[in-house]
Order: sequence, then C-alpha cells, then structure tokens
Amino acid sequence: MIIGLIGFGKVSQNLLKLIESEDIEFATSLEGRSDDTRRRIENSKIRILDSFKDVAAESDILISATSPKSSLEVAGLYGKYCKGIYLDLNNISPETTLQITEHVDNLVDGAIIGKIDSKNPILYISGKSSDELLFLDEFIPTKKVSDDVGDAARLKMLRSTYTKTLSALLIESQSLARGQGLEDEFFEILSLTEGDDFKEKSVSRINNTLNSSKRKSEELEEIIDYFENEDLTMVRAALKKISR
Amino acid sequence: MIIGLIGFGKVSQNLLKLIESEDIEFATSLEGRSDDTRRRIENSKIRILDSFKDVAAESDILISATSPKSSLEVAGLYGKYCKGIYLDLNNISPETTLQITEHVDNLVDGAIIGKIDSKNPILYISGKSSDELLFLDEFIPTKKVSDDVGDAARLKMLRSTYTKTLSALLIESQSLARGQGLEDEFFEILSLTEGDDFKEKSVSRINNTLNSSKRKSEELEEIIDYFENEDLTMVRAALKKISR
Repeated sequence: MIIGLIGFGKVSQNLLKLIESEDIEFATSLEGRSDDTRRRIENSKIRILDSFKDVAAESDILISATSPKSSLEVAGLYGKYCKGIYLDLNNISPETTLQITEHVDNLVDGAIIGKIDSKNPILYISGKSSDELLFLDEFIPTKKVSDDVGDAARLKMLRSTYTKTLSALLIESQSLARGQGLEDEFFEILSLTEGDDFKEKSVSRINNTLNSSKRKSEELEEIIDYFENEDLTMVRAALKKISR
Repeated sequence: MIIGLIGFGKVSQNLLKLIESEDIEFATSLEGRSDDTRRRIENSKIRILDSFKDVAAESDILISATSPKSSLEVAGLYGKYCKGIYLDLNNISPETTLQITEHVDNLVDGAIIGKIDSKNPILYISGKSSDELLFLDEFIPTKKVSDDVGDAARLKMLRSTYTKTLSALLIESQSLARGQGLEDEFFEILSLTEGDDFKEKSVSRINNTLNSSKRKSEELEEIIDYFENEDLTMVRAALKKISR
C-alpha cells in the first residue's frame, strides 16, 4: 500500500514515525519544495516521485497535510488524480470540507486531537470511506465519527468551542481569586472536584490563551460565524474576554 | 467539651453523626422548635438545655447552622452570651460575616464544600480562632484558609463563581453538539482530556442548573454584586444564559 503525502511539515513527519509497517510505503515529491524540506525528505525513508500529480495517481491513500489556507487549492490541483482515499488533515472548517468534495471523489476528513507529536494524539475521521482507514488505529488511535464528511471537522470545532470558552472562564476566575489573595486556595479547593491536575492544566490553558490571544480570538470568530443561528452567549463572552 | 447547636437541620444532624467522641458533648435547646424538630432532637444523643441563651453560655464551640437569612439575627440574639468560639456554617456572604463580627467576639466562618451528607464534605474555616477548630479534622476533613474572618466565605464564593459559570458553558456546548447530532461524540472526545467522568459530571451539572435556575441566577447576582468592580464578562454571560 502506498500512502502519498502532500505537505511535509510536523503532521507528515510524525505520521512517518508513527506508521511503520512492511506493507506500507510512503511517497511524496520534491516538486517546488524549499532546500530545507528537500533535505528533510531525502533523509527519510520515503519514495520520491517526480510530481504531486504522480503522487496523487499512485497513492492508495493521499494525505493532504499542508495548512488550512491551502487545503482547498491542493484539493483543486491534485484531487482529480487521486483514485484512492483522499484524507485531509489540514484542520479545516466544516465548510471547507464541503468545498473540497467538489474536487475529490473519495474524501475522508480527519481531525487530530492533541498535538501530533504529543504522547496521545487521536485521529478522528469521517466520510463514507473512513472504515477503510480504521487499520490506522494500529499506529495512532483512530476513531470514526460518522459517514458524513465534515463531522470530524465539526466535532473538532465543538471541542474547541468548549475548551476556548473554558480558558476565558479560567482567566476570569484566576483574576478574581488573585484579587482576593486566594489564588492558591481557589485552585486547591477546585482540585477536590475537578481532579488533582486542575491547577497545572488550568494555568497551562490560561498561559496558552494569553500568549496567542489573537489567534484564539480569530478561531472564536470562525466558530461564531459557523454557529451563527445558535445561542452563543458564553462563546461571545469568551471572544470579548480574550480579544481585550 | 461542649458543642452547642443552634439550628437542627441537615448540617447539625450530620455533624452529630460525624463527630463522635467521648470528650465531646453536644447541646441544644427545644426553645421555639416545631414538634417535628423536638422529636428529632429527643431521639438523638444530645443534651437539652432550657434556652439558646444557656446553650450559648455553656458551649466551648457554638455552631450556628440555621439559614443564610437568619444567621445575622441568630448572632445578634445569642452571640453576646458565647464565651467560646462561634462557628457560623450558614453559607453566608463575606459581607454578612463582617456584620456578624459586630455581635460575636470569637467568630470563625466556615464553608462546607460538597454536600454535608455526601461522601466527601470538606470544612473550610477562617478567623483567628480557626486553629482551635482544626481538631475537627479527625471527624470531617477541615482546612484553615486564613486568620481573616470572611475568607472561607470568599473562597466558597470564588469556587461557586467558577462552577456556576462552567455549568452555563456546558449547557451551551451540549446544545450546540446536540444540534449537530454529535452530543455523544462531544462528551467522548472531551473525556480524553477532561477525565473519564466528564460526561456524567457534566450532565449532572447541567440538570442541576436547569432544575434550579432561579436559585442559581440569584446566586450569580449576589456574586456580581460582590465583585462589582472586577471584569465579570463570563459571569455576566452565565447569568444571562441561566436566567432565560
């Protein structure tokens, strides 16, 4: 089986490490790559084809792992040559998933939960062909959401709605507790019901959000656009809080 | 040692069960009690004095466990007769705690976290004399917050700020996930990072909040009054969400 890679960033490189099997060969192309990426590719055990068109045509599974912004362009350029399964791992929105189906016959949308290079990344997939990708579970925990393309993206968005809004709540609560001189006690008392790692997890979420508040705000804006007809009282408050 | 009880509801009855020691005698009075309460008192191993004035005067520790509304009146009536420690367990606000110090020399404010009749109630206490109550830890986990009367009440309020706002977030997230047909998947994906009991705990919080939304709204209003000079974006959103 050949797994073709378009994009050779963190996701592709980690998949190469995770998916080691005699039956699986990875393929990509050096077409248009930077010197740095060329070197990284040439240093890895991966078959190099002349063009991405060839990669698409020869792959049983074609993985697009570039960036959310270029996912649609990649699908437009190479999707039509792909005879196998096209797995998009670009962390795209449910709408983009739908647009990609116009260029790709056999789309599976995938969402990686947890960082790909962390201890426990999990791959969520959806789409009619996702059953055929469940063998990946041997290498990276893989869960099928449904037969509907877009459900993995939607699920990731729902998760992110919760965690980002929770971070805004934690920022506010920590600040209130600090103002009362009771920050340590606040985290301690909550760890009784929220788990021993509540403080560590919360502080990491707070810092992570404060350090990338612009990106988090943009992601919350996307969420609000997507669910515009729903009651988003808490999410809107989180955007207000974080974008300050 | 004599522990006097004013109020014979759930808190007092459970303290009687929890604190069993040869060295400790409980005392209360039947003064002004309903028939039902009289019967309950007469059926328990507790010394009965003629009046609450006597109870206050004879107790080493006088526990006021009536209701938030009557806590100040109780303190005004009996506080002046109390020579020992006056422990208020009425779930009062930090302001009320301060008002009570006008009637009571030796106040310790206590906040019970978790239900008193649950598996794991914890007693938080604050005030100069709280050290003298740490022996209670033998019977019910007891933690001193600080020497400042009101800190236990403040800590309970901070905790409640977080948990009530979190419940509002859970209500919104569950509703969004349900609208996408991904409710089970939403809880499952979050249990990976939030703990195995995430769904169970969340559903219980959601139901608990929806079933007593009026009371929860009032409590959020009190919180907003208390912290009025702070940024309460998330708490105000929670009030809006819950009071609908």
